[in-house]
Amino acid sequence: MRILGIDCGSQITGFGVIESDGVSHALIEAGAVRTDSRQALPARLLHIGEQLRAVIARHHPDCAAVEDTFTSVNARSALKLSQVRGAVLFVLAEAGLEVGEYSPATVKGSVVGHGRAEKEQVAFMVRSLLRLDRELRPLDASDAVAVAVCHAVHQPRRAA
Amino acid sequence: MRILGIDCGSQITGFGVIESDGVSHALIEAGAVRTDSRQALPARLLHIGEQLRAVIARHHPDCAAVEDTFTSVNARSALKLSQVRGAVLFVLAEAGLEVGEYSPATVKGSVVGHGRAEKEQVAFMVRSLLRLDRELRPLDASDAVAVAVCHAVHQPRRAA
Repeated sequence: MRILGIDCGSQITGFGVIESDGVSHALIEAGAVRTDSRQALPARLLHIGEQLRAVIARHHPDCAAVEDTFTSVNARSALKLSQVRGAVLFVLAEAGLEVGEYSPATVKGSVVGHGRAEKEQVAFMVRSLLRLDRELRPLDASDAVAVAVCHAVHQPRRAA
Repeated sequence: MRILGIDCGSQITGFGVIESDGVSHALIEAGAVRTDSRQALPARLLHIGEQLRAVIARHHPDCAAVEDTFTSVNARSALKLSQVRGAVLFVLAEAGLEVGEYSPATVKGSVVGHGRAEKEQVAFMVRSLLRLDRELRPLDASDAVAVAVCHAVHQPRRAA
């Protein structure tokens, strides 16, 4: 199954496409969309959405996964992040992709084994799980791959 | 100038299209998009976005206006509302529309004359300003027209 994981952010939105059978995972592409903070929000959302559309067109994922919105950051950041998330979910729904949503703790638990891991630990484990020769940068790309891996391991197993 | 005003909401998103010279305003269409709360969020965002696209295709507005996200409601509602707003801004940007953003107090001030008006007062003044034979329902549609009127009166006047 091909999974598109997304790590939403108002400045940098990471994405990662993996091919997975639920046990072993192969990286197809990972990267990040940066937005210009001098631009108005609608233009930034459009840029993020269009870049994700291009990723979908390149790799035809079967499904997608994002993190839940979390309320632990300050209110203003959470509102900005939620607007990015809204635009991203719109684009995913438009592409006909089912979207899995996971808490940050569930994502970390899926790749590191516990829910309070640091970002660098997540990056280290993403590198290890996908047998990459180096860690993914920016960290947002690595986080997006972690979300995709989380979705992969949470799929019901099919009988062989 | 033709203006599309939008009142974002996770259950009901109001829209109103007016033609205005900045002083007198004529209603073109107002209505509301309702979403099914049993549906997953991506599907609801897609429905809202697609309905707004249809409104844009019907009336070809020159610009659009929305309310600022406000933080006075509870955090969970604000996050939901922000996701709707993100999808809406994406669709507006994709349609090439410049988007004006106004605080709720500015919108109310533009139609009622002060920023602490009740929703019913806004509906009464929207009816009056647009010389309608009855108030617009649902109130979300009326609120969306108020946002459009707010944008109209905030445009710089052109010399005759």
